Amino acid sequence: MNKITRKLLKAVSDFTGEFKGAFNIREDGQCAGRQSSEHIRIENKEDAPGLVIRIDGNAQQETVYIPACVTHGNVDDLVYNDFYVAAGADVTIVAGCGVHSDGEEDARHNGIHRFFLEKGAHVLYQEKHIGTGDGKGAKRIDPVTDIVLAEDAVLEMDTVQLGGVDSSTRKTSAVLGARAQLIIHERILTDKKETATTEFEVSMDGEDSAVDLISRSVAKGNSSQDYHSRIKGNCRCMGHSECDAILVGNGTVNAAPELYAGNIDASLIHEAAIGKIAGEQIIKLCTLGLTEEQAEEKIIQGFLKA
Amino acid sequence: MNKITRKLLKAVSDFTGEFKGAFNIREDGQCAGRQSSEHIRIENKEDAPGLVIRIDGNAQQETVYIPACVTHGNVDDLVYNDFYVAAGADVTIVAGCGVHSDGEEDARHNGIHRFFLEKGAHVLYQEKHIGTGDGKGAKRIDPVTDIVLAEDAVLEMDTVQLGGVDSSTRKTSAVLGARAQLIIHERILTDKKETATTEFEVSMDGEDSAVDLISRSVAKGNSSQDYHSRIKGNCRCMGHSECDAILVGNGTVNAAPELYAGNIDASLIHEAAIGKIAGEQIIKLCTLGLTEEQAEEKIIQGFLKA
Repeated sequence: MNKITRKLLKAVSDFTGEFKGAFNIREDGQCAGRQSSEHIRIENKEDAPGLVIRIDGNAQQETVYIPACVTHGNVDDLVYNDFYVAAGADVTIVAGCGVHSDGEEDARHNGIHRFFLEKGAHVLYQEKHIGTGDGKGAKRIDPVTDIVLAEDAVLEMDTVQLGGVDSSTRKTSAVLGARAQLIIHERILTDKKETATTEFEVSMDGEDSAVDLISRSVAKGNSSQDYHSRIKGNCRCMGHSECDAILVGNGTVNAAPELYAGNIDASLIHEAAIGKIAGEQIIKLCTLGLTEEQAEEKIIQGFLKA
Repeated sequence: MNKITRKLLKAVSDFTGEFKGAFNIREDGQCAGRQSSEHIRIENKEDAPGLVIRIDGNAQQETVYIPACVTHGNVDDLVYNDFYVAAGADVTIVAGCGVHSDGEEDARHNGIHRFFLEKGAHVLYQEKHIGTGDGKGAKRIDPVTDIVLAEDAVLEMDTVQLGGVDSSTRKTSAVLGARAQLIIHERILTDKKETATTEFEVSMDGEDSAVDLISRSVAKGNSSQDYHSRIKGNCRCMGHSECDAILVGNGTVNAAPELYAGNIDASLIHEAAIGKIAGEQIIKLCTLGLTEEQAEEKIIQGFLKA
């Protein structure tokens, strides 16, 4: 494992030199370390690059790490990871991704993740994305996430992209069975000329399924963000989505959330707010001794943490 | 003017046998009556079917009626009406539209309205749409409204479609100058197999312009509604949109509101809620002596009035 990988791993998956329990480290398209655990089996995918991760029902409060790093330009890493989570399992999956380029050439990671949660399984999925390096080559991360939740399954998805990624297109789709719950928290900060696109498509097909989709964006510099979501209520279900964005400098944001109610018992709500930081907020923090820049930074941090 | 026209006029423009002031009545593609007033001149459009309506700055608290009726099937009426409203004018424009078909053939009205409001002009634009008749022929109304608001101009647009229209596609676009205000209240009720589509595109180009877009929908029977809006904030401006819908029976609603903030001083907010009438609301009214159907009717009336 090279030095850049170590640094990226620290940033995206709190790596301190070793992982406890099950893990797989992907470095420039290769496996740089792997370990299965009693209840979490990690194997190569047979028909394509990537992993098959099988989590049995006895996995309780366990964490599996599957970070991926691209450490130089001229890499276009494409990986397919499938997660099969058995009934009753309760796990955290940490899937950070770091992309580094010092040179002229692009560095790209494109992870296609599929989740199959059986009845009552509970997964917390954390995905932290970062780009580093001063090269002219674009750092790109384009994740695709497909989710199938059986009845009573719960997936909490926590995705963070905090700068350095020149362009990202994130596509997430989910199909929910009866009483299944999908909770998504997305936080994206873009700066300079970065662009970030997110597309969500959630289909509530099982009675009493629910989705809560919260997206928070900060667009600084000359960056631009594009948010699309489509929540479909096809039965008795609850859907809530919220996309809030802060503009700084010349940042721009487009937010297009869509709600489809195809059943009288579908209850769908959406809220969105886009704007700059209120002047009073800045002034308040300045009276406490912060400079204007520090105040702005503080407010953005708080916004992206919540 | 035939009997059906009289009936339709009563429904869409509160016609009681005569109009006071300026008016033009369109019946099956023909002019069934016209009158200009001192400050409102109504003339035929030269290059296409329709009217040119010129409202001078001395028109104050005046109303102009331009209802259009289609009274039988096999009519596909297309009309282009242009409104030029001079600086300082303050008028109400009543543009109801009624479509009637007793037979097998379709009856359609397609009005393309363009509004040019000069500095500080104020217009209240009322558009009530209705379909009547038991024929199998579809009653269709497809209005297109293009709006240009100069600085300080205010357009209040109040559109209502309360049943009987088999299909409607409503397209509204607006460009706002400095301090211009656009206030849109849309209310649509569909039933049976009716479909209604609305598309709004509002571009706030002038500093301190503002838009407030409120859409209320009720989808009953097997009807479906589709709502799209795109509010673009290209400068210091305020945008608010709200689309709420009530589902009854097998009605479906798709709501896709889009906000684009292209400037740090654009402040944009959106809210949406789709669902059925809460059971408690029905029960409350039933305890007051109403049947369940009456209670539902009462709640829908209140919702569409607000």
